[in-house]
Amino acid sequence: MRPEFDCTLYVCTDRKLMSSASVEESVEAAIRGGATMIQLRDKDVTGREFYETAVRLKQVTARYHIPLIINDRVDIAMAVDAEGVHLGQKDMPASAARKLLGEDKIIGVSAAKVEEVKLALEEGADYLGVGAMYGTSTKTDTRSVSIETLAQIRQEAEIPIVVIGGIGKDNAMNFRKLGINGIAVVSSVIAQPDIEAAAAELKQIFLGREAV
Amino acid sequence: MRPEFDCTLYVCTDRKLMSSASVEESVEAAIRGGATMIQLRDKDVTGREFYETAVRLKQVTARYHIPLIINDRVDIAMAVDAEGVHLGQKDMPASAARKLLGEDKIIGVSAAKVEEVKLALEEGADYLGVGAMYGTSTKTDTRSVSIETLAQIRQEAEIPIVVIGGIGKDNAMNFRKLGINGIAVVSSVIAQPDIEAAAAELKQIFLGREAV
Repeated sequence: MRPEFDCTLYVCTDRKLMSSASVEESVEAAIRGGATMIQLRDKDVTGREFYETAVRLKQVTARYHIPLIINDRVDIAMAVDAEGVHLGQKDMPASAARKLLGEDKIIGVSAAKVEEVKLALEEGADYLGVGAMYGTSTKTDTRSVSIETLAQIRQEAEIPIVVIGGIGKDNAMNFRKLGINGIAVVSSVIAQPDIEAAAAELKQIFLGREAV
Repeated sequence: MRPEFDCTLYVCTDRKLMSSASVEESVEAAIRGGATMIQLRDKDVTGREFYETAVRLKQVTARYHIPLIINDRVDIAMAVDAEGVHLGQKDMPASAARKLLGEDKIIGVSAAKVEEVKLALEEGADYLGVGAMYGTSTKTDTRSVSIETLAQIRQEAEIPIVVIGGIGKDNAMNFRKLGINGIAVVSSVIAQPDIEAAAAELKQIFLGREAV
């Protein structure tokens, strides 16, 4: 059985943006602040460094029982027994990843258009990362998604949706009322001086609760 | 059982250097010229393009019963049922790849030093790619290997060794007498106007036979 997962506050790593000395430290702080899911993304390091970071990170996420999702590299996800992978439109197709991972792992797919969503559903995606919603400093090749397209995608897909791309304190309150399950964030958590506090605050804002 | 393999003429692809219109055409010509093993190497394309090329290439190599080795990406090797992977020193460790691939797939490891060879043997490598032997246009970060180091490596390792890095018509005759099992080549086959003829000639030179 595929594990249940909660994508309310889905935190992606970024070695270049993080305010901590290590990816593990950043992630541990984010989890203490309320991150419900972690994605290791490391496009600019060697396969070996990515693998070794994944090994160390898995020890952190396992201690907190938080799912670890590996960006792009299905083999590294398998090697460290991560809970799943996240695939962009330029990565291996989800159907190929599913054959390798079997039914017990989570597969997320990035989508910006309704057609991409339909294909991701056919190929067996477990959740969708939809965006970029706003301009972002972490990705330069992003295609922006309007609120209308997001609403269409929400209608199309019964699986969980996280929005991504420029999500922060100023806009995190916009999505729950649209039926969006969570926010995927990079710099608005990982790059903040106090990662734990930033995670906690952002989660409250998304959930529409008063800060404690 | 791991398949038997013959690494006499081990041809690596290079999309930027190839003289044919497609990777498949280049490889088919190389096989017709006598290539005994093919490595798909595609560092500069997206994961999806790498995967799709591997799918198409596997159809070619399977038709000729030639092993297809995938550079770096163990997941793509598994997805296309390639015969094995080749791992550089900066890729996932061979021991991690072995756990994913099982005992029936070929794992090759790049090594330039005796210590790297010892580690590769411990981690279960099936063959070694040793080099760079000479200067090369296809790799810029190479460390060169002397004939003395190559002889030491040959003594250390009982598994097949292919030499790589600047191997061509002028030097391919130097290695068989050292007990080297094969030559791994990129541009001296793939970049030639007549790939089939270049492969055939190079194989003859390595084997020390008169050209037919």
